[in-house]
Amino acid sequence: MTFAATILTLYPEMFPGPLGISLAGRALEEGVWSCAAVQIRDFATDKHRTVDDTPAGGGAGMVLKVDVLASAIDHALWLQPECPVLAMTPRGKPLTQARVRKLATGPGVTILCGRFEGFDDRIFEGRGVEEVSLGDIILSGGETAALALLDACIRLLPGVMGAPSSGAEESFEEGLLEYPHYTRPVEWEGRTIPEVLRSGDHAKIAAWRKAMSENDTRLRRPDLWERHIGARARPASGERREKKDQGQ
Amino acid sequence: MTFAATILTLYPEMFPGPLGISLAGRALEEGVWSCAAVQIRDFATDKHRTVDDTPAGGGAGMVLKVDVLASAIDHALWLQPECPVLAMTPRGKPLTQARVRKLATGPGVTILCGRFEGFDDRIFEGRGVEEVSLGDIILSGGETAALALLDACIRLLPGVMGAPSSGAEESFEEGLLEYPHYTRPVEWEGRTIPEVLRSGDHAKIAAWRKAMSENDTRLRRPDLWERHIGARARPASGERREKKDQGQ
Repeated sequence: MTFAATILTLYPEMFPGPLGISLAGRALEEGVWSCAAVQIRDFATDKHRTVDDTPAGGGAGMVLKVDVLASAIDHALWLQPECPVLAMTPRGKPLTQARVRKLATGPGVTILCGRFEGFDDRIFEGRGVEEVSLGDIILSGGETAALALLDACIRLLPGVMGAPSSGAEESFEEGLLEYPHYTRPVEWEGRTIPEVLRSGDHAKIAAWRKAMSENDTRLRRPDLWERHIGARARPASGERREKKDQGQ
Repeated sequence: MTFAATILTLYPEMFPGPLGISLAGRALEEGVWSCAAVQIRDFATDKHRTVDDTPAGGGAGMVLKVDVLASAIDHALWLQPECPVLAMTPRGKPLTQARVRKLATGPGVTILCGRFEGFDDRIFEGRGVEEVSLGDIILSGGETAALALLDACIRLLPGVMGAPSSGAEESFEEGLLEYPHYTRPVEWEGRTIPEVLRSGDHAKIAAWRKAMSENDTRLRRPDLWERHIGARARPASGERREKKDQGQ
């Protein structure tokens, strides 16, 4: 089944953009996913095709109008009634790999991209839109965040990655950063590949990688480490931990 | 001065991509920033132009070779000796708006984009590369993350945004989510704009927005709220808090 990506945006020409190239581009050509970028402005009702207005209560910038957004979302829901509608906003819940995995197993995703000061807040409850945030940085619009989210989903679709990670490997990782990688040459500018990795002793290599993974997570991401420790204390939680397994 | 963006990638055709359009596109035309995408493969030394090899110690995927990466980075450092070199990787430090602001006030940024299983880890210490992560999701490569990071930097460059936020507004926000926005119509599908925003009472509006901002941060992002509380307890820390001020 084709994963249906629908993007509501003022810049439909940004899509598929970088996702028309490489892994995602091949998958698009093969029909693994589809990409429909919908121009929000087409749902404006006045002759000036107005999509924004000044913020109630005053302040800088412009706010995307709720009635126009609602018409655009209704159109997307008519196209793809089964797909969840997400809005990219720094006020949203931070995206996790667990959320991405769930999206990737579904029929697709509709992504609402903001510009200017953001959306009229009534749209979220009014149309059941899930507010998500890519990270704690402020973008000029939701489009580059949508591209990253779609990239993350697409690589998980069946047949896209050459060698999908096994389920066993996933449950092993349990929300840890991945261990560091090395490849030939063995020595480079006086820096050598750790000896254990050249030992051929698979048990020792696995133990070293696990230790590095835990150590790096503890040092670099105390937030993830706390959750990991918490998850180990509750082994029957049933929720699969999020995983970090590949070069971004 | 032109902000110099240099991207080291196996897919240079992805740049400027969406950043050639809209706000960032206009700024690129006006010379506010420059965009140089460098093909990592051009720095391979064998006749097959090999950039990757199997992981030391075994395992799935391929690892980007440290010698090839080093040559590509050395080329970028020759082009832009003053620019910090960042690598997009889920093992990196999560990007913050504070880091983005600092980058945007500098001469530019060089971004190393991974593919496959990631980088030979020796490159980071060997060339002083800063590992950064966009968020806790796994991408097929660093390119869409680089686009988001550049978008975040570019909008802060002088002259790019129509009405830049004042310094006063920034220090007020202090690491909180922004309050919700509304605009006309006053009533939409039975949902009305909060009355206070229609009162014309600027002090009451400011108080309501501050309360909403604090409340939403506490409920939606307890992690940011904890930091905010901590920062208030240490008012002389000198570090400006990160800000969330616009629709992504």
